Amino acid sequence: MQDVSPFRNAAQRETDRAAKRDAVLRAAVRMFNERGFFATSLDDVAASLGISKRTIYHYLANKDQVLLECVTIGLQQLLQAAEEARAESGNGRDRLMKFLRRYAEINMDDFGRCVIRTGEEALSRESLPRYRALKKEIDVALRQMLREAIDDGSIAPIDVKIAAFTLAGALNWPARWHEPDGALSTSQIADAMVDILMAGLDSRSA
Amino acid sequence: MQDVSPFRNAAQRETDRAAKRDAVLRAAVRMFNERGFFATSLDDVAASLGISKRTIYHYLANKDQVLLECVTIGLQQLLQAAEEARAESGNGRDRLMKFLRRYAEINMDDFGRCVIRTGEEALSRESLPRYRALKKEIDVALRQMLREAIDDGSIAPIDVKIAAFTLAGALNWPARWHEPDGALSTSQIADAMVDILMAGLDSRSA
Repeated sequence: MQDVSPFRNAAQRETDRAAKRDAVLRAAVRMFNERGFFATSLDDVAASLGISKRTIYHYLANKDQVLLECVTIGLQQLLQAAEEARAESGNGRDRLMKFLRRYAEINMDDFGRCVIRTGEEALSRESLPRYRALKKEIDVALRQMLREAIDDGSIAPIDVKIAAFTLAGALNWPARWHEPDGALSTSQIADAMVDILMAGLDSRSA
Repeated sequence: MQDVSPFRNAAQRETDRAAKRDAVLRAAVRMFNERGFFATSLDDVAASLGISKRTIYHYLANKDQVLLECVTIGLQQLLQAAEEARAESGNGRDRLMKFLRRYAEINMDDFGRCVIRTGEEALSRESLPRYRALKKEIDVALRQMLREAIDDGSIAPIDVKIAAFTLAGALNWPARWHEPDGALSTSQIADAMVDILMAGLDSRSA
């Protein structure tokens, strides 16, 4: 057995740095969600972690970058959910349903909530293009999954654009009303909402 | 025929005052929706009307009161839509559908958009109770209409709370994505969204 070096190697230092940066983002996103972005200062975030604002600047340039990172994490979780759902077996309806359930759950979690609650008004002009590009990717993925489900006959033919907005709107909304300590779990809420929405998309004999 | 007095009587002065106050609110709500509440000053609003900020203060106390009036108008439009729908003939499903279509349309109009886009983060602590009470009334009305439609068998039995959030979320969302100059009219969008949502609520033989 080798002696353990008291010095951290490059990989350990990088892991350490990433963990600290994550902790800053997690503390910040919770404050943004609770108090609102404009009412939260990086001093508040630093205080909640028992560090100084100068320490935060070691990991993130400014409050705008903190927000951009937070919404980017949320949007990437949604994109990943789309990718995972599309890799599933089953028909188009099954994959769509899988995606919508995760979509709803993510919007009730810290970073997903921030995407919806803080919105694009709070992002700087420089940050908007990246944010919008990611949002666009998610919309494209959702429309593509709707189209595939229509094409394989597992849901009714429908205006894909309107359907995508209807689904996204319904499933974005829990970011505003859901209380983490509520009686229903996020997955129970996600399932119940998606059941209603999927029934609206199902093939029907007139 | 009486001579027309060059002096305005009390009723005329009151009408005049209300029209000017409305013009201020309409100009303000459009700027809030386009630029965001925090990025809009009352100086901007005044300039767009060719008046001074001092003139605005003749009608409204401050920017917070302007916002509160704007969201109150939007919320009262929604409440009125609920009342009108409930006075309609037909079954519970018909009345619900009528309400949901107007609900969607209002959220694509100036004051409805402001309710959703500006959200409660921007309201002052003093304004929140009135705002929340109105929101609550709308939620209660929607749940009541869902319950009536379930009771008369015109829609499937369903968790009324979750259904209300699902519907409201879907129909609030156009406030964020709808562009007034888009290819579809607001009533076309409202109809298409409500068709999807109502199909999700319809009675189904398993």
